[in-house]
Amino acid sequence: MTDDSLWETPAVTILRSQPGFDLEGLDRNSTPGFTGKKADGERLLEERGAVLSGLQELLYANGRSGDSRSVLLVLQGMDTSGKGGMVRHVVGHVDPQGVDHASFGVPTDEEKQHHYLWRIKKQLPRGGYLGVFDRSHYEDVLVVRVHDLVPPNVWGARYDEINQFEKELVDAGTTIVKVAMFVSLDEQKKRLQERLDRPEKYWKYNPGDVTERKLWPAYQEAYQAMLDKTSTEHAPWYVVPCDRKWYSRIAVTELLIDAFESLDLSWPPADFDVEIEKARLAES
Amino acid sequence: MTDDSLWETPAVTILRSQPGFDLEGLDRNSTPGFTGKKADGERLLEERGAVLSGLQELLYANGRSGDSRSVLLVLQGMDTSGKGGMVRHVVGHVDPQGVDHASFGVPTDEEKQHHYLWRIKKQLPRGGYLGVFDRSHYEDVLVVRVHDLVPPNVWGARYDEINQFEKELVDAGTTIVKVAMFVSLDEQKKRLQERLDRPEKYWKYNPGDVTERKLWPAYQEAYQAMLDKTSTEHAPWYVVPCDRKWYSRIAVTELLIDAFESLDLSWPPADFDVEIEKARLAES
Repeated sequence: MTDDSLWETPAVTILRSQPGFDLEGLDRNSTPGFTGKKADGERLLEERGAVLSGLQELLYANGRSGDSRSVLLVLQGMDTSGKGGMVRHVVGHVDPQGVDHASFGVPTDEEKQHHYLWRIKKQLPRGGYLGVFDRSHYEDVLVVRVHDLVPPNVWGARYDEINQFEKELVDAGTTIVKVAMFVSLDEQKKRLQERLDRPEKYWKYNPGDVTERKLWPAYQEAYQAMLDKTSTEHAPWYVVPCDRKWYSRIAVTELLIDAFESLDLSWPPADFDVEIEKARLAES
Repeated sequence: MTDDSLWETPAVTILRSQPGFDLEGLDRNSTPGFTGKKADGERLLEERGAVLSGLQELLYANGRSGDSRSVLLVLQGMDTSGKGGMVRHVVGHVDPQGVDHASFGVPTDEEKQHHYLWRIKKQLPRGGYLGVFDRSHYEDVLVVRVHDLVPPNVWGARYDEINQFEKELVDAGTTIVKVAMFVSLDEQKKRLQERLDRPEKYWKYNPGDVTERKLWPAYQEAYQAMLDKTSTEHAPWYVVPCDRKWYSRIAVTELLIDAFESLDLSWPPADFDVEIEKARLAES
């Protein structure tokens, strides 16, 4: 839920992937549920970022007091969809000491020798932490599927396996917020162009990104299958149009706020006698 | 260096621990080198935090391009000196995806079975990252010394060992910013009192903190020895008075900016042919 009237429908409701959702029909330049403009969005990002920060501190406090619950933000999207900016501008609002951040790129040689969930399990958030996955185990049904890195029966079995894995995580106390970020082919081109036009952005450019653009339809198909098969009751996908960065950022901020609020946290009670401690302190 | 005239002497100069420094004479409520007031400090924190953020992105970009250098902020100080707030309000300015944060509390059973540097080495920052140590290997010449957890000849040998360890780190490309944070006994009492007066702060309170207060002189002696023996050319200590949180935060921001600037970084050149890529992109 959100307390701001510029959201006519809460992000958590309108962005949730529903059965039968057709990715092809998604307007990636749209701002679902939000009636405000960019300036409203930028203001809201600060306001709601502060709310998020307070909620994260509450979770951290509970974690320090033995609560093993956590929140895991999974960011999955094509190149230039804005995953890095999401970390910087949304996760950047909370205390870095409460964040467990992990990026999952091309697997290392060591990672390749293990089950694809091995590297994921090593990076799960600790109790009390906000985990952030920049890419995730879903790479193994996206890039792996598109590039035929394993046979279809192998990646085909992973959807159920992932659902089962996430169910165990949720049962163990992790609230998973899965965000599928969608940029349009045109907007992606603009963003790649910018990386080629500005020398301070060269480091973000990878020639492979252009190669991948030619596989766009296959990626869209793989994303559609991912949404169809792994948007579950326990860990639904949220489909976020990302051509407008300001929108995607306030949307994910709301999704996180909702996740934290669902934990119904309060400040942990003292595990000591307050009056006795006041007396001890006074004497010290 | 700093570009703001409110610093009459740069933090990196005035705070650097010098041979013969006497900790007892330190006014922990002072604001060395800074002529401004709290409001100036709070404004500067935002301005200079943005500068720090830009420098960190530059390091991160270079790291992505193969530069193995890193910056490591070591925060060492008594309870309530403001280490957590330093992470939140100073490190919080930079992109969380470029930060490797680690806290070192009472060693776990596993950690106790290893050399005291074992857990430290596991958490060193990756190339391109800003590492942050909330407490550090210096615990092993502070709390360990004060509580006689190992014989004097054992902790006594650690100063040289730490200097050697840090020398190797520096030689391998890590710029170490060691910050010794000093709060006064009175201010510590106020901060602990606040944790007992406000239920939302109970989780930060630990009865052991009052116990430690009785060991204050022994801790001061151990800190003095640490400064005397481990403030080296390659990894000097900076002594930061912390009774005024706003001062300590802008001071450490300046120390970090100086460390990043000393790397003399520029944006990494393209490792691809820009014109060819523009053509490829245009066709895609």
